[in-house]
Amino acid sequence: MDVGTLGTVKSLEPRDLIETRAQIILGNTYHLMLRPGAPVIEAAGGLHRFMNWSGPILTDSGGFQVFSLAKMRKITEEGCRFNSHIDGHEFFLGPKESMAMQRVLGSDIAMVFDECLPWPCERSRAEKSVEQTIRWAKASLDEPHAPGQLIFGIVQGGVYDDIRRHCAEELVKIGFDGYAIGGVSVGEPEQFMYKAVDASVPYLPEDKPRYVMGLGVMHQMVECVARGVDMFDCVIPTRVARHGTAITRKGNIAIKAAKWIYDQSPVEEGCDCYCCKNFTRSYIRHLLSCNEILGLRLLTIHNVYALNRFMEDMRKAIDGGYFQDFREQTLKDTTTKGNENT
Amino acid sequence: MDVGTLGTVKSLEPRDLIETRAQIILGNTYHLMLRPGAPVIEAAGGLHRFMNWSGPILTDSGGFQVFSLAKMRKITEEGCRFNSHIDGHEFFLGPKESMAMQRVLGSDIAMVFDECLPWPCERSRAEKSVEQTIRWAKASLDEPHAPGQLIFGIVQGGVYDDIRRHCAEELVKIGFDGYAIGGVSVGEPEQFMYKAVDASVPYLPEDKPRYVMGLGVMHQMVECVARGVDMFDCVIPTRVARHGTAITRKGNIAIKAAKWIYDQSPVEEGCDCYCCKNFTRSYIRHLLSCNEILGLRLLTIHNVYALNRFMEDMRKAIDGGYFQDFREQTLKDTTTKGNENT
Repeated sequence: MDVGTLGTVKSLEPRDLIETRAQIILGNTYHLMLRPGAPVIEAAGGLHRFMNWSGPILTDSGGFQVFSLAKMRKITEEGCRFNSHIDGHEFFLGPKESMAMQRVLGSDIAMVFDECLPWPCERSRAEKSVEQTIRWAKASLDEPHAPGQLIFGIVQGGVYDDIRRHCAEELVKIGFDGYAIGGVSVGEPEQFMYKAVDASVPYLPEDKPRYVMGLGVMHQMVECVARGVDMFDCVIPTRVARHGTAITRKGNIAIKAAKWIYDQSPVEEGCDCYCCKNFTRSYIRHLLSCNEILGLRLLTIHNVYALNRFMEDMRKAIDGGYFQDFREQTLKDTTTKGNENT
Repeated sequence: MDVGTLGTVKSLEPRDLIETRAQIILGNTYHLMLRPGAPVIEAAGGLHRFMNWSGPILTDSGGFQVFSLAKMRKITEEGCRFNSHIDGHEFFLGPKESMAMQRVLGSDIAMVFDECLPWPCERSRAEKSVEQTIRWAKASLDEPHAPGQLIFGIVQGGVYDDIRRHCAEELVKIGFDGYAIGGVSVGEPEQFMYKAVDASVPYLPEDKPRYVMGLGVMHQMVECVARGVDMFDCVIPTRVARHGTAITRKGNIAIKAAKWIYDQSPVEEGCDCYCCKNFTRSYIRHLLSCNEILGLRLLTIHNVYALNRFMEDMRKAIDGGYFQDFREQTLKDTTTKGNENT
């Protein structure tokens, strides 16, 4: 899922999302609650119409942002009182408010309100927090939803296998339309991320979507898929594009580097995105050097396309019975130090 | 002509230029000489291929920028020694260097190297400068050009009617493919701009294009067309878009204004650009408020389309014999204070 924090996948239009083969995008409840706020989106008739995107949208619950971005004031059974990271304005967000906002957004998939634990986190805190997360998940499900809106639960529990399992089992008892694994990609070393996935996936039903939140690096996605994960979201493709980095099947390329000044080849050889079909590294390097918006926009188009195509190819590999080869090739090509591009 | 200073009409792709009905774009020799520099554009095979735009390109000579942007070091008969406004690097630009650079750019229309006088400017300086401009025009024409490249002369002379006439007549004696009126839109009151046009146009051949440099405001363009002008260029449509202003047939609109927060209408009612067909003022206001790139890009698409369509409609008005009505309507709608949009 390409991330459209504020009602736009940064620098892209809906037609670009279709062209880059986006199947679904993510909207951030916390950010949209602050700006433009629920009444503006309600007036437009929901997020799809506000941003003119007719494809599916998943909205997060705002839990992650409240605990990472905002200035927390007080946590109670009902939720969190906090100050906006923009202007300090006071807000309250709990299961009731998050689901109400996601109802206004009218997303196709809404996430339950949860507490996203930091890394590292002591066992006693993780135990207590997960009980809160389970109660909030139930409360979120009990709130009214938009017509047809699916509700996903979120497994938390930090790096503690038994707490993860407990959380997963309790959520499955409640029963959701899909299940996310949260609290990963929060600064922990990679092996802890896989550990958290390994400790959660086996207890989640195979016939429901399983979604690792906040992941979007090729080798991490292929490793999670190998463990039974179906969905991901990540700001990396759009964020690194704005810093001049292209994502390719052979690793990342710093297009701004002086070595590409005369290079007449596309960002990624063989790629058929609009950027690679029409422009050279030399041209894009020039645009980036001059801080021209078109440079980061073209790289965003490439990166989003690259990730969406990567997932398509992974699905083909599964269907074609050669996923293990695909996995090994990905690990080899995207994690080797000193490849041709770096 | 939409202005593509650094090899991109800011935030737009070639396909956007086609969609917004651009017939020709302008590239800046001074800016492209500094970044990325001649060798990079030469390696790409010229500016068209560098930026992947197959339509016509006019390049200016760099004269205007050398005299307005750069730190001037010394002016001689051969040209100007100056320091780059980017990094202070020393460059030399005269008729020879400007035409060589425009040959590398491979533009369809190249402008002669000239001295653009500031406003106000004393008569004695204007007299002396215009003689230099005429000699540089001749020298520019004598340099080798790209295959098929047209060369336009530039009439200078400040606000002095007889100096303008003298310059125009001398340039016509030399003989160019088209003629520009320069040294307007340099901060002078509007009536002096029309005065400079009135003092130049009658001495330029009717069967060659006449081009007022640096103009792009609707009522000024219609007034210049009434005086016999054919071509314009201006950064206004793209620049004001980046500051949140939409250009319409009923005047400018500050889309960022709080009054549009719930407004579900398009930027300009009846406009069929991509922006107006797909998005509301409410959405674009939100994007601009959050400094989202998409907001200024969508407004850029609208503004460029609005100006290109305005010129199309003006041509239709001339062909249809109702130009005078078109002119009066434009003056009424775009210059009246206190209209519905402002």
